Amino acid sequence: MIFSRIAVLAPGLIGGSAALAATQAFPKAQLALWTRRAESVPAIRQLMPNADVGTDPALVRGSDLVLLAAPPSVLPSLVQSILPHLSPTTLVTDVSSIKESVEKAVAPLLQGKARWIGSHPMAGSEESGLAAARTNLFQKAPVILTPASSTSSETLRDATTFWQALGARVITMSPSEHDAQVARISHLPHCLAATLVLAAGTSPLSLAGSGYRDTTRIAGGPASLWSEILLGNRSEILASLKTFGTSLARLTTALEKGDATALTKLLEEAAQVRRTLPTP
Amino acid sequence: MIFSRIAVLAPGLIGGSAALAATQAFPKAQLALWTRRAESVPAIRQLMPNADVGTDPALVRGSDLVLLAAPPSVLPSLVQSILPHLSPTTLVTDVSSIKESVEKAVAPLLQGKARWIGSHPMAGSEESGLAAARTNLFQKAPVILTPASSTSSETLRDATTFWQALGARVITMSPSEHDAQVARISHLPHCLAATLVLAAGTSPLSLAGSGYRDTTRIAGGPASLWSEILLGNRSEILASLKTFGTSLARLTTALEKGDATALTKLLEEAAQVRRTLPTP
Repeated sequence: MIFSRIAVLAPGLIGGSAALAATQAFPKAQLALWTRRAESVPAIRQLMPNADVGTDPALVRGSDLVLLAAPPSVLPSLVQSILPHLSPTTLVTDVSSIKESVEKAVAPLLQGKARWIGSHPMAGSEESGLAAARTNLFQKAPVILTPASSTSSETLRDATTFWQALGARVITMSPSEHDAQVARISHLPHCLAATLVLAAGTSPLSLAGSGYRDTTRIAGGPASLWSEILLGNRSEILASLKTFGTSLARLTTALEKGDATALTKLLEEAAQVRRTLPTP
Repeated sequence: MIFSRIAVLAPGLIGGSAALAATQAFPKAQLALWTRRAESVPAIRQLMPNADVGTDPALVRGSDLVLLAAPPSVLPSLVQSILPHLSPTTLVTDVSSIKESVEKAVAPLLQGKARWIGSHPMAGSEESGLAAARTNLFQKAPVILTPASSTSSETLRDATTFWQALGARVITMSPSEHDAQVARISHLPHCLAATLVLAAGTSPLSLAGSGYRDTTRIAGGPASLWSEILLGNRSEILASLKTFGTSLARLTTALEKGDATALTKLLEEAAQVRRTLPTP
């Protein structure tokens, strides 16, 4: 597949980074950047002077790939607005952290109008917005593609080509498997980082070393987006919070009993798992 | 105070980094490095060719500063072994992450034999051992000094001078206040990082993005040392785990109820606190 025109809708940290990376990966492609707010146009033009930038959904016309970078709740209306400008060969994907609800909301709208597959780039930061976008955000980052049973192998292949060209490591699984796995590896850490910040309080912040800094980094992320993500995957997250509670009870009991053997064993189990994490 | 001879006992990540930083901060000082294990001597000599290195506690003789870098449980016997070689003007300090129990164990031994003050450099990493030592470990890192009521202002001043010369940001508080604050800002994060690793499990590790990576980094630390630290401060840690449980229940309830307003409010509170963290 040739990417001669690539549209990114609602470029913030993720979409903006994808647009920047795409200009490097596909130097001959024309970028089209759509934003809902006219006041965002100048900043986008400044970042990407050669792109078509504007607030008219017709900007997506002629695009080989359309990347929906808006929050999940906005996707249905956003997709509705671009439907007249899509062709059956257009590849449409998104960047949402939740996939089953997005699949249910978006796939039917695009049926027969374009080729659709969900994407979740596991890259990001506590920062947000276009100002935080950077060309190398996806280098070696996992991107999960979530084909449905109806997704063609060509659509999966083309989406894989796109994300790999941006430097990502592509992993494929069903939307529901995605939501179960990501609940544990991403949404649970977010819940705990936020809760830890609240529990640690503000008084000792001047003492914070790199441990606190790293453990809580993601808690600085945008609250409304994360609220939407967590609620969009709440049954899986509640299940992972239950598992977490069981492990935490094990640690608490070892501390209460002063049981050095049990505590060391638990910490060693965790350290061994953590050390198997592939280096980025 | 002039640091003409500086002894570091049991140099690993922290002690080794302090020795490396001290050779830069005090270029005229003679470093003396003591290790319990004869087989460690060659590696220490290789890292610091100009230092006096050996297994004889008499190495500390003539030192202006003695830095005890061994785990807390070892400190009493280590201090006993060097007592004959100290002078009343020698400044002795440590690097333990727990301070009240160390103060009670070490201060009486050194009474009248040397000048003592507890130190806790809040620097470190998931790595451990001398191989992980680096000169800049303490740059801008918080170092908490924990004077007791009997500690002289000269002792506090001299210890401050030492750590500041190594690049650290010195903060002073009592041993008990230290243990309460550090329980929340360091020991609680460690407990949660380890528990999160166990709860997230191993299957989705290939999906891990920077969020999981950072949130769990410290869980890779040495289990036996951390077990000792956590048990040495367990009443404060159990109190902070209780506070954490209250915050976690608040988040869980918001998720269970699907209460977007409550969840966003909680996440926004956490994000606001996190954003006040001073940049390192």
